[in-house]
Amino acid sequence: MDPAAQAIAVVGSVAFDTIETPIGRAEDVLGGSATYFSLAASFFAPVHLVAVVGEDFPPSDREFLGTRGIDLSGLEVRPGRTFRWTGRYHEDLNVRDTLALELNVFADFQPTLPEAARKAPIVYLGNIQPSLQESVLEQFEDPTLVACDTINHWIETAREPLEALLPRVDLLIVNDEEARLLSGESNISRAARRILELGSRSVLVKRGEYGAILFSPESVFAVPAYPLEEVYDPTGAGDAFAGGVVGYLAATGERSDAGLRRAIVYGTVLASYVVEDFGPERLRTLTQDDIDRRYRQFIALTEF
Amino acid sequence: MDPAAQAIAVVGSVAFDTIETPIGRAEDVLGGSATYFSLAASFFAPVHLVAVVGEDFPPSDREFLGTRGIDLSGLEVRPGRTFRWTGRYHEDLNVRDTLALELNVFADFQPTLPEAARKAPIVYLGNIQPSLQESVLEQFEDPTLVACDTINHWIETAREPLEALLPRVDLLIVNDEEARLLSGESNISRAARRILELGSRSVLVKRGEYGAILFSPESVFAVPAYPLEEVYDPTGAGDAFAGGVVGYLAATGERSDAGLRRAIVYGTVLASYVVEDFGPERLRTLTQDDIDRRYRQFIALTEF
Repeated sequence: MDPAAQAIAVVGSVAFDTIETPIGRAEDVLGGSATYFSLAASFFAPVHLVAVVGEDFPPSDREFLGTRGIDLSGLEVRPGRTFRWTGRYHEDLNVRDTLALELNVFADFQPTLPEAARKAPIVYLGNIQPSLQESVLEQFEDPTLVACDTINHWIETAREPLEALLPRVDLLIVNDEEARLLSGESNISRAARRILELGSRSVLVKRGEYGAILFSPESVFAVPAYPLEEVYDPTGAGDAFAGGVVGYLAATGERSDAGLRRAIVYGTVLASYVVEDFGPERLRTLTQDDIDRRYRQFIALTEF
Repeated sequence: MDPAAQAIAVVGSVAFDTIETPIGRAEDVLGGSATYFSLAASFFAPVHLVAVVGEDFPPSDREFLGTRGIDLSGLEVRPGRTFRWTGRYHEDLNVRDTLALELNVFADFQPTLPEAARKAPIVYLGNIQPSLQESVLEQFEDPTLVACDTINHWIETAREPLEALLPRVDLLIVNDEEARLLSGESNISRAARRILELGSRSVLVKRGEYGAILFSPESVFAVPAYPLEEVYDPTGAGDAFAGGVVGYLAATGERSDAGLRRAIVYGTVLASYVVEDFGPERLRTLTQDDIDRRYRQFIALTEF
């Protein structure tokens, strides 16, 4: 981590996931968008995690997040159980079914930021209700970069507060389906242009195993994903991608188009590692050398 | 076109297509894999087209191909009608339904190469029956580069002759679905490795609007597609892509990994133009400047 790195505050979900993929099954593994984001970003910058868990959240998971230097003062413990998700991936790993969903303590999540998080210049609004995202944003003293995620559910049920939020967003990070639903355009370039018109300063579209594409008023940047022979579990890849992107921007202070492009490649690298094992397991052993090596391999993969 | 360009001979289909897309409809437009390949390749190198048409093939289409310098001495005219295809694209342009298919004179296609074509050092075997592809390959005097396409139908019904052909192929160009079916592997990297084991020297996997990925024993190269706000008609994009790739290799004599990478970007550029209008219309007005400009735009799209 760069000693001059700026701090990131992330608000979102921490969960336990039960995951079936064609390769295997994992039960009650640490998950949630804010978890994957935080772990990935922690390789680049200090992270304040703002989320809620139940009384069942074990010391071992707290310790894992702690060893990555993630500040847990904003991890609220509420009476009840932690958010749980059970999903099954198809042979085509781009498709998954949700088999069970228990919101538990996450249902009443009213994020209140601890003092340290409020000062963070970099904000990542994970996919919670858009009005909550806005109320979180209000609590920051002076955010200089606001990145934001959302999901189809909020686009469908909370479009008004979501559209009200977009003009305060520097970087919206969504997948192609979400970009299409939000914009009403099936063509991804037109969808992105429409989202820029809605006010987001730039939009980064995640395309799973096909990579990602960034649209800003000045520039379009497209990257493939890093190809892997074994994908154990795609869960969290998109959140780790976002964590790598925002983490790099925090580490370097970069806001230029060139900097954002490098950030996206780092995001791609983090996502490629996460899917190499179930849940966030691979991030336990990941090193800075691993990240740098795969960044160079990504150059070799794409240069012409 | 480079004066030192090597000649390409292409064997495949020439057809009339009736196409519906969300943007419009075109009836009985010039189509077929060998047509799109030839037109795209003709911007780079001399092309000998080996195909069959019926007596209904009009002078105007012959003239169009002729103005692109394509040698039609191998375009056999047989009693009957030309191959016809009718298809409809979904709102998601990656999905299309075949509404009607009349093989007509193409059903009994027994390609015999004219003298000029036999001397071509570069061969493109479009998607015809694999035993026919092999019989065509036998007719060449001294081919130095053999590129080959196939489709699910032949993988399912003629796997044996197809597998017998692969060790004679330098570059197999297939889409991801075909790569999966041919290899029995759903992961695209593993699918490609299996195809290399079957004997093809390299395999270039087309992924439609998501780009392409090249696998060889030494190297993997991935590119996104060129993003467009309006796709009128995806028909022929994959064949024009192949035409650009093989055309560039013919123009430059390049066989290095770096050369093949540049060739793939030129293929991407040609594919991106073809989809800007129905059928091969856009290629009537396309110029070398257009190609060079978009090649530079593609660098801007992907560099980091």
